[in-house]
Formats: sequence, structure tokens, C-alpha cells
Amino acid sequence: MHGLLWILLRNGIRATVNLPVEIGKLVVCYKRKRMMSNRLTSDREKSQVVHHSSDTKQRWISFVHDLQDRICQALEKEDGGAVFREDRWERKDGGGGKTRIIANGDVFEKGGVNTSVVHGKVTDAMRTQLKMEGDSWFACGLSLVIHPVNPFVPTVHANWRYFECHNTEGKIADQWFGGGADLTPYYLFEDDARHFHQTLRNAMTPFGAELYPKFKQQCDSYFTNSHRDNEMRGIGGVFYDYLRPQDEQDADRLFAFQQANGNAFLAAYLPIVVKRKNNVWNERHKHWQEIRRGRYVEFNLIHDRGTLFGLRTNGRTESILMSLPPTVRFEYNFHPEAGSEEDKLLQVCLHPRQWVE
Amino acid sequence: MHGLLWILLRNGIRATVNLPVEIGKLVVCYKRKRMMSNRLTSDREKSQVVHHSSDTKQRWISFVHDLQDRICQALEKEDGGAVFREDRWERKDGGGGKTRIIANGDVFEKGGVNTSVVHGKVTDAMRTQLKMEGDSWFACGLSLVIHPVNPFVPTVHANWRYFECHNTEGKIADQWFGGGADLTPYYLFEDDARHFHQTLRNAMTPFGAELYPKFKQQCDSYFTNSHRDNEMRGIGGVFYDYLRPQDEQDADRLFAFQQANGNAFLAAYLPIVVKRKNNVWNERHKHWQEIRRGRYVEFNLIHDRGTLFGLRTNGRTESILMSLPPTVRFEYNFHPEAGSEEDKLLQVCLHPRQWVE
Repeated sequence: MHGLLWILLRNGIRATVNLPVEIGKLVVCYKRKRMMSNRLTSDREKSQVVHHSSDTKQRWISFVHDLQDRICQALEKEDGGAVFREDRWERKDGGGGKTRIIANGDVFEKGGVNTSVVHGKVTDAMRTQLKMEGDSWFACGLSLVIHPVNPFVPTVHANWRYFECHNTEGKIADQWFGGGADLTPYYLFEDDARHFHQTLRNAMTPFGAELYPKFKQQCDSYFTNSHRDNEMRGIGGVFYDYLRPQDEQDADRLFAFQQANGNAFLAAYLPIVVKRKNNVWNERHKHWQEIRRGRYVEFNLIHDRGTLFGLRTNGRTESILMSLPPTVRFEYNFHPEAGSEEDKLLQVCLHPRQWVE
Repeated sequence: MHGLLWILLRNGIRATVNLPVEIGKLVVCYKRKRMMSNRLTSDREKSQVVHHSSDTKQRWISFVHDLQDRICQALEKEDGGAVFREDRWERKDGGGGKTRIIANGDVFEKGGVNTSVVHGKVTDAMRTQLKMEGDSWFACGLSLVIHPVNPFVPTVHANWRYFECHNTEGKIADQWFGGGADLTPYYLFEDDARHFHQTLRNAMTPFGAELYPKFKQQCDSYFTNSHRDNEMRGIGGVFYDYLRPQDEQDADRLFAFQQANGNAFLAAYLPIVVKRKNNVWNERHKHWQEIRRGRYVEFNLIHDRGTLFGLRTNGRTESILMSLPPTVRFEYNFHPEAGSEEDKLLQVCLHPRQWVE
């Protein structure tokens, strides 16, 4: 979960940085293999770097904080009981964040909608170990995870982030956007899955028809428990990173793409909440929800490199681990009965589907 | 948790192997810096290698299976309700194990007492990536984790293991023992902590007075959540690895040392269970137990390299993750009230004590 910034360690092992939030000592600005290439992300020469840092940066910060407000307000309204509480925190080495937590609501059992705006100097260790360039870095993003009470309402995660590296003259040496959203239902409602994917797809398509299929695939690949036969933690969504602008016009388009994705979140998720939040559930449903939440914990703590790197580099632990579900169950070798409603969900996690054409 | 075998990857990063249990494709036999040096673990030249593989190996396998039987029987008797069920499994590339699970007992909510006897060929990948020597390897051990129902009864973990590497002639190229036991209480009873440590110490002292202090320290260092200000998951115990025999006599002594530690387990743990299992507890105690179990999950999935390496190298997932507690709770920024019984436990996790002189 959280935004992910892949880094290439000296030894060639790929790790990731929790980009916008809770970056500790270590942040990254380097040359690496491109994860994707399309008109949003094509390579560019150094000389083509866009030199209007403060503009994009300030616009992005404003957007992220506005989006945080909008999402929190909408979720509070939907809950009807609990409200978000805010913890503002400062990062010792530069910047800080606003962690907003909702807990024990009528609809949302636990959730966080966090923003951070962090920056720092590129250290010698970053230069040598991470092959980073530039003199300083900047990162800003929003990261959210929502765990509902009702096992028929899915958990959701989303994150949108922007990153810059600057040279000694304060000009941008590198910059990129990343983001995504993915859904983790406990019971499968195909309509809900289609609605979520369709909404994300609709937000992307104006920027290129090839984007949704590609980023849907990247999401399927990323959010899997490889130690459980590549079982996904849910039914996916979209996941993208390193969207680098080629020029100013491209930067504006990327910015608009990023906004479109962020703005689509409430439309993708809230209707599902509205539709399912009054479904009657019993202990069997709660038990299964807690088993699946266990898989969520496994993914976040074993595989999610953003979480791990954040924790290992002195990120703010409580902001990072707000993603963990409120109550969880681990049972030895639990398997739902073949053909049961629980098994139907498991099967789409084991065999990801195309939800929209 | 589980036995830990430190490996030195090509890139210089230290990782570990879940040694006795659930080793996947990858096992390790290599030269590395000694973690400790004392009369049980002093360096030895290749020429000094002990050449009586089958004897030590067969004796160890017998001991481990007998210990598994004894521990399971004693725990079943103490529980009075549930019994262990056994899953025998085979490792595709050689060997297998006996996973024994107890669940929903009167005293023990979830627990596993697992043995494995695994072996394989040293592959080219192991040779190049792990700088392993030898032609084949062998590993055998017992690994256990017990999660009681009652929050006043501590969780316990223990593991004892033996490892061999062989050359093409089938002679031992390297061999060592490792092991340990640690206690995770939810409420602090100083008598219990002293009893646990004293019993482990008594088992070790005949082999050298310096051993308990050193292995107690190693345990304190290892079982910590570094992302939570080095908070330990419990009050520790002992932890040791790479105890290499210098000669046959030394191998016999090491074997006896290992037996003494394994045999001390029931005496260290069961009296605490007997003393506390009828303590009256309420929802507050259960809540705190589940919060602390969350820290146990964090340690096992984020930091325990045995668990992680086992999972990443195709170990048997269900046998490895039997260590996870049955019900768990993750709350944002939860802190017990200063001076409360919950806080007293937390303070000894943050500031490990010397329990015996």
C-alpha cells in the first residue's frame, strides 16, 4: 500500500520507497529501467527536463489537500456516526503530514486518509547506495485505506503521488507521478467489481485507451500474496508509477491524468458502500472477513515494499500501519467449502478476471 | 521465529533461512563471519571436520521426534480438552515434516509443534548466489509456538535445529546447531519471567557459565520490532546459532547442550501455564492480548528472516504461518495508560531486564 517508488539498490535488488508518506532518511532520485513506456511515460533526455518545479509542486500540494478534505467529508457523511481525527506530524529532516483516522464508525470500522509533503537533501549514502542524482528531493501524496464493519462492503486502498529531484540550482532533475486504487471485497458482487473497474477505466481512457488495460494488469501483478499461490488480496483496480513528463505540455497532461484518477475515487467506491452497507451479516461472514483481513496483513507486511521500506527507514510507524485491519484472524490451513460464497471470492483472487472490456 | 540460518547473499545483505522447517528450494552452506566465538563455537579448519554424519544426524532425528511427542503429550494433558492433529507433508526436493496443530483448546487457543527432516543437493544457484560449498545439505529441527486463550498465560516460542553440508564423498563439510526459546507475556509476573530465564540458564550453565548471558543478549537483540523503538515482542529467553563442533568430542558436547536446552522447555514453560491458566480475565485483558498479538504478527512478518525466507523460497506456507496468533487487533496509535498493568508489560519490552543474576 501507499505510494511506491522503486529503487535500485547498489546490489541490484529492487526495493521500494513509500513515496509520499513517511519517507525516512532515504529517498531516491536515480536512473533506472522504465517500468512502462507509453505516451504518458516515454523516455526523455536530461535537456528536456521541465523547469517549472514550484508551479506543478504547489498545484499538486493544493490538489492533494483538497482531495483529502473531499474524501474525508464524503466518508464521514456516508458513515453518519464517526468523524476523522487529524494528527499533524513533522518529519525531522523536512516536511510533514496530516494523518486522518476514522475508527469504530457505523459503517467504517477503521480507516486512514493521509497526506504528506516531505523533502530533503540527497545524502552521500543515497548517491552511492541508490545511484541518486540531484541535490535535493521532494515528495507529496495522498494514501488511504478504509476497512468497513460490514463484510459485504469491500475494503479499499488508493494512493496518488508526485516526486521531484532538484539540482544544486534548484531546477528539476527528474520528476514523476504514480498512483492507483484497488478493491478488496470479502464477498463477490460482480456488479460492484465491474462498477469499480469501469469507473477507474472511464477516468483514464481520455488519456489513452491503452492505459487502463496496462495499469489494471500491473495492479493484478503487484497486489498478490506470492507465498499463497499468487492469490491476490482482492479484485484489483489500477496501479502505475514513473509517469514522467517529456515537456511542459506533457506535464500538464500528466497532472490532469493524476487529477482524473484521484477525482474518480469517490465515484468508484462510495456507490458500493451505499449499496451494501445495510446487508445483513452474521458471525460466519465476520469470520471470513477476518480471515481475509489476515491475508491483507500478510500482503502489507510481507510483500508491500512501500510499507517495509517506510518502516525500515524511520517513517512514522503509526501512519504507515494505519493500513492494517482492526480485527484479524489467522487459522491454520483454513479453506472455504468448494462452491460456497466464500470460495467464489477466493477463486477470483486466485484467477483475476477482466471486469470490463 | 523458527530456526534461523544466516546467509550471506552475493550482494552482502544478510538474510536468513528457516532452517529445520519448510526450507524451499534454497538452503545454505557457506563461509561467513562467526556470530559468536566461545568454546562451543570456536573456529575450525576444514581439515578438522567431524566425519560421523550419520551418527549425529540419526541421533538428532530421533531426539527431535521424541521431544515432539513429549511436548505434545504434556501440552495436551495441560489443556485437558483439545488434542494435536498431525499433518505429514513431503518436500518435493527431499524430505518432509510433521506439523502438529492444536486449536480452540480450553487452555491453548492455537499452537503448533512442528518437526522437519529435509535435505537436498546444493544447486548452482546456491553456489554462486550464496557462496555455498559442498554437494548436498541436510537439516532437521523442531519449531513450536503456543498461543494460550487466557491473557495471563504467556505465548511461547522455541526452536532447536541441526544442519550439515556434505562433500561429493558424502562426508561432512560443515555442521552446526542452533536454537532458543522466548516468552511473550501479556501481563508481567516477575516470578514467571525469573522462572523461565532461570530454567533456561540452569540448562546451559553446565556447558559454560558465559553461555546464558551471551545467548540471553542475542535473544534480546533479535526479537525486537525495530520499527517501534526496538520494543521486544516479549521478555526474551535465549537465542544461539552456528554452534560448530571442533572435533568428535566437541560434537558430543554440543549434542548434549542442545538436548539439555530442548529438554528444559517443558520445565521452563508449563509451570507458568499451570499457575496462570485459571486467572480470571475480562474483555480489557483480551483486548490488550490482541493488541500485543498484533506486535507478534508485525515481528514475525516484517522482521523474522526465517519466516520471510521460508515463504520466499517456497516453504510450506501453512506450517510456517502456524506461528501467527488466532485473533489479533490493530488500532491506530494505541498506548496503554501510564502506570497501568498493560504499561508495565510494555516497559519491560522497551527496556529488557536481567531476570537472573
